[in-house]
Amino acid sequence: MIASGRTLSVDLGERSYPIVIGSGLVGDGSLYRPHVHGSQVMIVSNETVAPLYLKQVESALAAYQVASLVLPDGEQFKTLSVLDRVFTALLEQRFDRRCTLVALGGGVIGDMTGFAAACYQRGVNFIQVPTTLLAQVDSSVGGKTGVNHPLGKNMIGAFYQPQCVIIDSATLRTLPDRELKAGLAEVIKYGLIGDSEFFVWLEQNMPRLLAREHAALAHAIERSCQDKAALVAADEREAGLRALLNLGHTFGHAIETGMGYGEWLHGEAVGAGMCMAADMSARLGWLDELQLGRVKQLVATAGLPVGPPPEVSPERFIELMAVDKKVLDGRLRLVLMRDIGNAEICADFDPEALKQTLYAA
Amino acid sequence: MIASGRTLSVDLGERSYPIVIGSGLVGDGSLYRPHVHGSQVMIVSNETVAPLYLKQVESALAAYQVASLVLPDGEQFKTLSVLDRVFTALLEQRFDRRCTLVALGGGVIGDMTGFAAACYQRGVNFIQVPTTLLAQVDSSVGGKTGVNHPLGKNMIGAFYQPQCVIIDSATLRTLPDRELKAGLAEVIKYGLIGDSEFFVWLEQNMPRLLAREHAALAHAIERSCQDKAALVAADEREAGLRALLNLGHTFGHAIETGMGYGEWLHGEAVGAGMCMAADMSARLGWLDELQLGRVKQLVATAGLPVGPPPEVSPERFIELMAVDKKVLDGRLRLVLMRDIGNAEICADFDPEALKQTLYAA
Repeated sequence: MIASGRTLSVDLGERSYPIVIGSGLVGDGSLYRPHVHGSQVMIVSNETVAPLYLKQVESALAAYQVASLVLPDGEQFKTLSVLDRVFTALLEQRFDRRCTLVALGGGVIGDMTGFAAACYQRGVNFIQVPTTLLAQVDSSVGGKTGVNHPLGKNMIGAFYQPQCVIIDSATLRTLPDRELKAGLAEVIKYGLIGDSEFFVWLEQNMPRLLAREHAALAHAIERSCQDKAALVAADEREAGLRALLNLGHTFGHAIETGMGYGEWLHGEAVGAGMCMAADMSARLGWLDELQLGRVKQLVATAGLPVGPPPEVSPERFIELMAVDKKVLDGRLRLVLMRDIGNAEICADFDPEALKQTLYAA
Repeated sequence: MIASGRTLSVDLGERSYPIVIGSGLVGDGSLYRPHVHGSQVMIVSNETVAPLYLKQVESALAAYQVASLVLPDGEQFKTLSVLDRVFTALLEQRFDRRCTLVALGGGVIGDMTGFAAACYQRGVNFIQVPTTLLAQVDSSVGGKTGVNHPLGKNMIGAFYQPQCVIIDSATLRTLPDRELKAGLAEVIKYGLIGDSEFFVWLEQNMPRLLAREHAALAHAIERSCQDKAALVAADEREAGLRALLNLGHTFGHAIETGMGYGEWLHGEAVGAGMCMAADMSARLGWLDELQLGRVKQLVATAGLPVGPPPEVSPERFIELMAVDKKVLDGRLRLVLMRDIGNAEICADFDPEALKQTLYAA
C-alpha cells in the first residue's frame, strides 16, 4: 500500500529527523528505506500489536535481512531484564552496528526499543512506528528513551533520537477505547502548556475525537507533534523549557509507581496528574475556579480520571515524588499553570499548597 | 595531601575534558571540586581498591553529600545486573540528576560507572579515577563505557565522556604484578599503532617499567594518554581512525569471551591478540619476520602471553569474532600492521591468512 502523508520536522541540527503523519503508512516501504543504512533490520513489537501490523511492516522491509522480536505487552515489562532480551536477540542473530531497529507499538515498545538502539554496540539507528495515540502524539517524538526501575519510572535511559517517526493514524482503528482516552491526556497537555487555541478546539471537538473521526484525530496528532517538536528543538536535553512537557507527570509517575506499573495506563495517570497540578495552581492563586473547572471538565470528557486512586496515600505521594527526575539539589520542581495555555516550572512553591492538593484528593 | 600533576586535554568541543597525571592526586579535593556541580557524589569502587583508597577519596569530597558503593572485583561482574545495583543505590539514596559519580578502580569499574552515569536519569556527570595501569593508559580516556553480555564483550554501552580523569601514578604501587603486566599490553599497543619512537623506547625501558620506576611509568602513562587523546579527538564515535585502538582486541575479546570473563585479564588477551594480529600481518606480507619477532619479543618481555590459550579452538575463534563490533554488513574488519608504528583497518584481507594464524596458534 502506498500512501502519502504530511511531514513535520524536528530541528536538531545533525540529529534532525522527519515525522510523517498519514493514513495507511505502516506498510509503505518507501518511508523506511531512506532511514535504513545497513542490511539488517529488527522489528521490535508486542503481543498485542504484532498480530495486527507486523506482517505489513515485514513486507515493507522485505529488501533487508529482517528479524522480529515480540515482547509481552504492558508497562510492567519496561524493565532492564526485558531490554536484555532485545540485546540477546540482536547478538544471537549477529546484528552489527549498522543495523536498524524498528519500534512497532506504543510508548513502552518505543521507549525500550529506542534505549536498546542507544546502547547496542554503543548506538545503532532506529525508526519509531507508534501505533497508540499516546505514542503518536508524545513518546515517539523527542528522543527520550529508557526503562523503569522498581524505585522510579523512566529512571534509566538516554536521550537518543530516531532516524524518523512514521505515524499511521489508521492504526488507531484497532486501539482499545481505554488506550485512546489515555492518549488524549497527552493531547490535552499541549493545550494546557502553551496552546490555548488548541485547548479551546479540544473543548469543542472532544466528542469527534472519542468517535475516532479521522479528520479530527489527524488534526490533533499533527498539532500535538508540532507543539512537541518546537519544545524539543528549543531544548533537546531538558535543561529548561522542555521540562514543561512534564505537566502532570510528577504526580502521574507517583501514581504509576505507587499502584505498580501497568495498573493505571500512563495517560490515565497523567490525566489525574494534570488535574492535581491545576488544583495546586488554583490553591496558589494562579488559576481561578473557572479555569480549574475547565481543565477538570475536559479531562473528564476525555473519559479520564480527574484525581488519584485512594490506594496511593498523600504520604506515599510525597515519598515517591522525592525521587522524581525533576528534583534538583533536594528541591522538587513542579510544572504548574498560570493560565490555560501558560505553564511554568516552579521550585519555590508553598509546600502547604502541595499538601492541601494531596490531602484534598 | 596536595600534589601537583601535569594536565593533558581531550579536545572534543563542548565535551572537552582534562586528564591530570601525577603522584598522590587521589586525595586532592581541589582536583575534584571544579567538576562536581550538584551536592551529591557517589563513589563506585570494588572490594580490592576500596580498602586502599576509598577513605582518601571520601575525605577529598567531604564537602559534599558522599555515598560509596563497593562492588565485587572482576570482569565477570561487568554485567547489566551488577549495573542495576548502582541504579538501586542511587535511587535508594535519592540522588538527583545533578549528582556526580566517581569511578575509583580499574577498567571494569570505570566502564560500568561511566555507563551508569550515561543512563541514570538519562545522564549525570562522572569523574574517572583509574587505579590500574590499564585503566590509566586506556579505558579511562575516551568515553567508551558499557557492560558485557554473555554473547559478547562490551556489547551494551554508550559513548559518554567524563568531566575529568585523575590519574594518580602512586596507586600503581599497590597493583599486583599480573595487572601491571596486563596494563603494559595497552601501552605497547600505542607504539604499534602509530608511535614507533615510543615502541623503541619501550624496547629499551621495559625492565624499568616492570621494576615500577616512577619516572618511567609516568612517561609511559603520559605518552599513552597523549596518543589516545589524539585519536579520540579525531574520531570520538569511532567512525574511522579510532578503530585503530582496537589492535589486538578482536582476537582478544574472542579469548575473553571464549574462556569466560575474568579468566584471562583483558590486557593479557590483548597481548596475545596483538601477537596474533602481527602474525597475520606477516602472513599477508605486511610485516617481515624481524618485525614480527620484535612484536612478540616485547610482549613476552612484558610478561604477557604471545598466543591464545588452547581452550579456544580456531573454530570457536571464528564463531566469536563474527559477533565483534567491528563486523559491518557481514564483513569482519581487523586492525593489522603495515609496519611497527603503522596500523591499518582492513576488511578485504585474504581469509586464508586468518585461518592460518588461528590454526598455527
